[in-house]
Amino acid sequence: ETRLRKYIVSPFNPRYRAWEMLLVVLVVYSAWICPFEFAFLSYKQDTLFIIDNIVNGFFAVDIVLTFFVAYLDSHSYLLVDDPKKIAIRYISTWFAFDVCSTAPFQPISLLLTNHSSELGFKVLNMLRLWRLRRVSSLFARLEKDIRFNYFWTRCTKLIAVTLFAVHCAGCFNYVIADKYPDSKRTWIGATYPDFKEESLWDRYVTAMYWSIVTLTTTGYGDLHAENTGEMLFDILYMLFNLGLTSYIIGNMTNLVVHWTSRTRNFRDTVRAATEFASRNHLPPQIQDQMLSHICLKFKTEALKQQETLNDLPRAIRSSIAHHLFFPVVQKLYLFKGVSHDFLFQLVSEMEAEYFPPREDVVLQTESSTDLYVLVSGAVDLVRYVDGQEQLLGKIIAVDTVGEIGVLYHVPQPFTVRTTELSQILRLKRTSLTNVLHANPRDAQIITDNLFMRL
Amino acid sequence: ETRLRKYIVSPFNPRYRAWEMLLVVLVVYSAWICPFEFAFLSYKQDTLFIIDNIVNGFFAVDIVLTFFVAYLDSHSYLLVDDPKKIAIRYISTWFAFDVCSTAPFQPISLLLTNHSSELGFKVLNMLRLWRLRRVSSLFARLEKDIRFNYFWTRCTKLIAVTLFAVHCAGCFNYVIADKYPDSKRTWIGATYPDFKEESLWDRYVTAMYWSIVTLTTTGYGDLHAENTGEMLFDILYMLFNLGLTSYIIGNMTNLVVHWTSRTRNFRDTVRAATEFASRNHLPPQIQDQMLSHICLKFKTEALKQQETLNDLPRAIRSSIAHHLFFPVVQKLYLFKGVSHDFLFQLVSEMEAEYFPPREDVVLQTESSTDLYVLVSGAVDLVRYVDGQEQLLGKIIAVDTVGEIGVLYHVPQPFTVRTTELSQILRLKRTSLTNVLHANPRDAQIITDNLFMRL
Amino acid sequence: ETRLRKYIVSPFNPRYRAWEMLLVVLVVYSAWICPFEFAFLSYKQDTLFIIDNIVNGFFAVDIVLTFFVAYLDSHSYLLVDDPKKIAIRYISTWFAFDVCSTAPFQPISLLLTNHSSELGFKVLNMLRLWRLRRVSSLFARLEKDIRFNYFWTRCTKLIAVTLFAVHCAGCFNYVIADKYPDSKRTWIGATYPDFKEESLWDRYVTAMYWSIVTLTTTGYGDLHAENTGEMLFDILYMLFNLGLTSYIIGNMTNLVVHWTSRTRNFRDTVRAATEFASRNHLPPQIQDQMLSHICLKFKTEALKQQETLNDLPRAIRSSIAHHLFFPVVQKLYLFKGVSHDFLFQLVSEMEAEYFPPREDVVLQTESSTDLYVLVSGAVDLVRYVDGQEQLLGKIIAVDTVGEIGVLYHVPQPFTVRTTELSQILRLKRTSLTNVLHANPRDAQIITDNLFMRL
Amino acid sequence: ETRLRKYIVSPFNPRYRAWEMLLVVLVVYSAWICPFEFAFLSYKQDTLFIIDNIVNGFFAVDIVLTFFVAYLDSHSYLLVDDPKKIAIRYISTWFAFDVCSTAPFQPISLLLTNHSSELGFKVLNMLRLWRLRRVSSLFARLEKDIRFNYFWTRCTKLIAVTLFAVHCAGCFNYVIADKYPDSKRTWIGATYPDFKEESLWDRYVTAMYWSIVTLTTTGYGDLHAENTGEMLFDILYMLFNLGLTSYIIGNMTNLVVHWTSRTRNFRDTVRAATEFASRNHLPPQIQDQMLSHICLKFKTEALKQQETLNDLPRAIRSSIAHHLFFPVVQKLYLFKGVSHDFLFQLVSEMEAEYFPPREDVVLQTESSTDLYVLVSGAVDLVRYVDGQEQLLGKIIAVDTVGEIGVLYHVPQPFTVRTTELSQILRLKRTSLTNVLHANPRDAQIITDNLFMRL
Repeated sequence: ETRLRKYIVSPFNPRYRAWEMLLVVLVVYSAWICPFEFAFLSYKQDTLFIIDNIVNGFFAVDIVLTFFVAYLDSHSYLLVDDPKKIAIRYISTWFAFDVCSTAPFQPISLLLTNHSSELGFKVLNMLRLWRLRRVSSLFARLEKDIRFNYFWTRCTKLIAVTLFAVHCAGCFNYVIADKYPDSKRTWIGATYPDFKEESLWDRYVTAMYWSIVTLTTTGYGDLHAENTGEMLFDILYMLFNLGLTSYIIGNMTNLVVHWTSRTRNFRDTVRAATEFASRNHLPPQIQDQMLSHICLKFKTEALKQQETLNDLPRAIRSSIAHHLFFPVVQKLYLFKGVSHDFLFQLVSEMEAEYFPPREDVVLQTESSTDLYVLVSGAVDLVRYVDGQEQLLGKIIAVDTVGEIGVLYHVPQPFTVRTTELSQILRLKRTSLTNVLHANPRDAQIITDNLFMRL
Repeated sequence: ETRLRKYIVSPFNPRYRAWEMLLVVLVVYSAWICPFEFAFLSYKQDTLFIIDNIVNGFFAVDIVLTFFVAYLDSHSYLLVDDPKKIAIRYISTWFAFDVCSTAPFQPISLLLTNHSSELGFKVLNMLRLWRLRRVSSLFARLEKDIRFNYFWTRCTKLIAVTLFAVHCAGCFNYVIADKYPDSKRTWIGATYPDFKEESLWDRYVTAMYWSIVTLTTTGYGDLHAENTGEMLFDILYMLFNLGLTSYIIGNMTNLVVHWTSRTRNFRDTVRAATEFASRNHLPPQIQDQMLSHICLKFKTEALKQQETLNDLPRAIRSSIAHHLFFPVVQKLYLFKGVSHDFLFQLVSEMEAEYFPPREDVVLQTESSTDLYVLVSGAVDLVRYVDGQEQLLGKIIAVDTVGEIGVLYHVPQPFTVRTTELSQILRLKRTSLTNVLHANPRDAQIITDNLFMRL
Repeated sequence: ETRLRKYIVSPFNPRYRAWEMLLVVLVVYSAWICPFEFAFLSYKQDTLFIIDNIVNGFFAVDIVLTFFVAYLDSHSYLLVDDPKKIAIRYISTWFAFDVCSTAPFQPISLLLTNHSSELGFKVLNMLRLWRLRRVSSLFARLEKDIRFNYFWTRCTKLIAVTLFAVHCAGCFNYVIADKYPDSKRTWIGATYPDFKEESLWDRYVTAMYWSIVTLTTTGYGDLHAENTGEMLFDILYMLFNLGLTSYIIGNMTNLVVHWTSRTRNFRDTVRAATEFASRNHLPPQIQDQMLSHICLKFKTEALKQQETLNDLPRAIRSSIAHHLFFPVVQKLYLFKGVSHDFLFQLVSEMEAEYFPPREDVVLQTESSTDLYVLVSGAVDLVRYVDGQEQLLGKIIAVDTVGEIGVLYHVPQPFTVRTTELSQILRLKRTSLTNVLHANPRDAQIITDNLFMRL
Repeated sequence: ETRLRKYIVSPFNPRYRAWEMLLVVLVVYSAWICPFEFAFLSYKQDTLFIIDNIVNGFFAVDIVLTFFVAYLDSHSYLLVDDPKKIAIRYISTWFAFDVCSTAPFQPISLLLTNHSSELGFKVLNMLRLWRLRRVSSLFARLEKDIRFNYFWTRCTKLIAVTLFAVHCAGCFNYVIADKYPDSKRTWIGATYPDFKEESLWDRYVTAMYWSIVTLTTTGYGDLHAENTGEMLFDILYMLFNLGLTSYIIGNMTNLVVHWTSRTRNFRDTVRAATEFASRNHLPPQIQDQMLSHICLKFKTEALKQQETLNDLPRAIRSSIAHHLFFPVVQKLYLFKGVSHDFLFQLVSEMEAEYFPPREDVVLQTESSTDLYVLVSGAVDLVRYVDGQEQLLGKIIAVDTVGEIGVLYHVPQPFTVRTTELSQILRLKRTSLTNVLHANPRDAQIITDNLFMRL
């Protein structure tokens, strides 16, 4: 909505979002290839070399692009599109890291060196892992996006972290074994003495296998540290695993507790009702009524919308009420001929509620405090005479209920009971009276309408 | 209650429920036999073959039957019994899967092939595991059924999932070893070189043993992956185990937190009371009174029924009140001779409460706001004169307390204290006055009854 | 308190409690010796045999005793001392189990058999483990007893369960190895071929070592199942361990969450205050005042006693008020010469509150709604004139504050600020007025007292 | 603030705090060196010996110093600076332990013995670990210090405990192997027969490696207990690990639950709004308004400051109000020329609130209950005529809104809607009226000011 300066892009721009998603895919590729190249490949000008440099190119473009992307100021909650401010903010935060993680160390190494200091350049290449911060901020955004299931977002994140840890640890552990002079006194060489001759696939799977056996603390022991260097790496990896495992368990516990809370509440309610019924020896038909009411209430929980509405500001609330109830209220016989403004004021004061079947909306002899508008569904009018129920009539949507009681302060002459799922608008007598006082002409029309019907 | 079209069955029909339970038993059988056959048995026309096909037959019948079972519409919460809608719903959701999981691949394989492509048909046979969705929906229903203990339902579910995972992984891992050309370079062959000659029982137990040693992350290492294929399977299984283990721990934590919350509250209350007593140097008899009150309150927590009642709709609440209190109130001397309607109105306004022994229901000099009906138990009437307690009398159920105070606006002349667990009905003065005003004839009868007694 | 029939003992009798504690000690002995005898010892008429039978004797006495112990009825919450009811209840519940777990199978086996069926009698002897239910109910009671720390009670329970599981599993696993014909193909024989010749201590420690290595899922693999029987036992034990481990973790999580909640709240409050201060650029002295107030509030949290009092019934509350405040209020100049009854009524209406130092009890120009009695501590009287504070005076306990304002409806002429931790009684003007109206003679005395001072 | 006696230091004195921090650093050194010396070094008069004794010296100084440090009394919450009380408190609590943990056992052993009883003195030296209580109390303080992130404080604590446990267990296990007569039947000797000849570094890393493999329950099995003594130590260590691991998991779960609760609430709110919108078929622009309002509300959650203020005592609250709002209110045209006292009273009654952009502060036709002061931001004045919005004007901070309505009881003539993030002061009409009644001269000035503007 807000218009930005020329050449400045909004961070919420769909095209920019797509570009970000593309970069995340490239980051995933980088995260996998970086440790893999480090451990298993030597640098040659092959296909992989070209792909790596294309990927690097994309990130270089992104560095330039970032100077043209507005940002949300954390104090005023407004988008800042001043190029100077954008540049200052970027340079003072992540610019240096981004440049380092994009610099083409590999081509430089090929130009400058005679491959003797390969390891050093390989280590510099690992700086590309800095790019992972993008994945991290993507997950932070996905978790707040309700189009994605929270459980699966969270699980995907945990699985991604776990797999990356396994991959990295496996690769680094392989490097340690690879560089160790006595290849028989390494974790892999002790079992497979000629491991350097085996296929890349076999070596990679074995490294992953060791890594995951250690991470899950299974620890078969068929592959284990043989020299001090490996032991040190293992110590660090196992300490990290302790943290990661408890993080995974903590997350799962959190999800389980959240899931089961609804079932819990349901069970507690049903148990309380059942115990109450059995303690008081209630007859079976009342027990059944109680239980079926509780079941229906939990099934229709989503229909309780008043809470959602209450959290919204009044302006939005009143435009929702207008959109939903104006066409309905306009059609009622009671409000035929009244002014647009009058109806508008009434509608803003109305509250909608859903009633499951067989629930009493109004009880006989109760004092009339509300005017009800039946928007959908149907209700029965029931009268108790000498302890017996008498069915007086049936009302089907759209119609009003209790208008006489509210307008002439008469107690309810009958019980109103839903026969199916019904949406009912409720208007407080005090609100109605206030609006009527302010609009005497419309009040007269309503009185006429009422007499016409009677 | 709701009548359905001819030939259409309700999903809540007890016979249909029994049929579903029978299918769940068959599903459990399928879940066990499927991986087992896949790993350890070759297909022959033996007893097992016949049993499998009978089981398949049951599921085929169920597919047909499903076209005649009504379903609960998720919007209107009503049962839909239109055969067309039922068919559309089934065909557009699970029909295809159900047919695939029931198709008799095994007999077809025997007819069509010369046993060369056995593995392919075995894999197709695994489609039968689709049936497990029935077990999953059974557990979802059991968890909401309070006849079953939540803890044990949940545990059974977790144990079932764990055992199924162990069984499947053991069987699949055996298949990998069985198909590997060099049987000495397999997880089982490295320890038992002639494992293919061993008894079915020994091979199955060994596979299960490996599986559970891995799942629980014990990882003795006596049996471990030997070749790349096994390593890959192990990697996947261990990742799955990480999830399953945290799921189990998360569930257990959830249950433990729920269990201990009541003891927690009790301890916190007792501690607060004890600290209060010791800080203020209260004499021991007051301390004892405080603690015994708290203990009794927690023991009789189930007696607090007002909360349960408040959540019910008014219609159910008033029929409960009528059932419970009408016979009691009818017997009271105060209401002898009054009309049925009058009593009915009174009873709807009453609230029941339990008082533990030695608790004060009414305090002397308090203003009279309620009429009390002692339904069960007994109370003492106590008067304080110059700081000394005097016992005035004793009232045993069924009787009224405080009628003079409420009817003539007099402050309570004495304290009413329970001597045993007592159920007491409470009727607000305002409610009583309203009903009396509406029924002047009955009001006269009550005044007469009161004077008669005095 | 409640008197029971002759020869019937209350379950809360201290001597019976001591007897129960003695039995719990014997149960712990039984729990340890039962599996140990089963696995490592053969039956001879030695010292252990005699001890076992003495212990059995104690439990036999307890069976008889139980017929004379009253029980708490779960419906009426009263002690039942009818011998018939006690007997019916015991015989219909645990009697049979208790007799089986006490029957002297060992001596019978020595009399009847020629040691051939030893294993059978050993298994029967394991019935003694039924006695463990006593330990379980002891822990249930300890958890509710606030004299014991909840954390340590819970930990002791978990450790006891863990140790018992480890002990049992170790012993049973040893039995399996001991009975296996080929002792070299057992978990212990594979490493220690002549294990049957080793000392009892070495064998026991090795069994425990295996057991705990498996329970904690460490699984070194130096000792592992070698034959099908051991594998089956291992499978069961590991499944049990999965449950036990999650139970332990669940309990610990529960305890950690409870512990840290107070620190959490404190941090959240401090953070909100700090952020508020920095956002609004408040001067440092106001910031310091805010923070020191929050710190003091959390330190003096235990002083908030009103909540504890509110949960008690009115009778207990008024006797506490009488005990605590009557002697204090009696000494006040305002109430000199008033009647005992009048003071008693006043005291019942008073509420006590603690104020940390430097907090305002009453604000200048506020309307006077309460009479304050300073029970301990001291307060300053401060007046604001043109935005400047003026110290008017100092009041030290015991004295009244605000009596003129309350009695003559005058707004507070000054701010009352505590200078140290002060306990203050608060009496509402409405309550005071009611009591004064009911006692015109005492009202006159109070007015006189007030004028005397002025 | 509080002045202490001469020579008595406050425990909150910054220099004393620095001294405590220095001691904590020395404690960390002691905690590491103690078990290390015990296991790997023999006592000689080398550099380490001198360093150890210097460190001891520091702790000896601290013992003396403690007699001059005031303490906070746990009952009165006041600092106690009476040297006698300080001495009694210290001697009756930790004095003996502190002396034992500082006594120079090592030099004494060198003087008195001919190195035969070295082990005994080594054990005595372990008393120095008592000093760790300082680290424990440091962490307790850090957790409550909001300058440090709670998560990282907690993690550091857990990592410190884990590392210390690993270090100690590794060292003790090495001692057991070192002292065992047959060095080939030890956990380390079975793999490295000549381990006593290897370098200190190799031996230490191997011990740590075994320790952490056991703690994380990885249990490769390459190093495992070989004799009964090692088995016993392993049993104890593994039991301890079970507790430590669950403690770590419990803490992590606690942190995860706390973290995610905000995202949870956000998602639940958004989901409820989305479901409501789709169920009622709301047009997209209303949906967008709803969602953007919810997003903004969560982003600006920190701006809700009323809750923070409400928890503070009235004195602090009114000085904050004075500091923040007095300069703003003074500048308003409405209050030009009024007295300082009048303004001061008004400001104490004001409440500040932040409104995100596009929210309605006041609705047209609402009754005027508050006077609003726009402190920052800007608002639009909007009028609805026949269901159409008309923009009447714009108000920019600082200005008043609704003064006519409040002063002359007129309903709001227009809707006031924020156009950017705005801070608004709210003054209730009743409060304003009270203050005006009490200051008739200022009331006149305000009326004049209002007429001047109109």
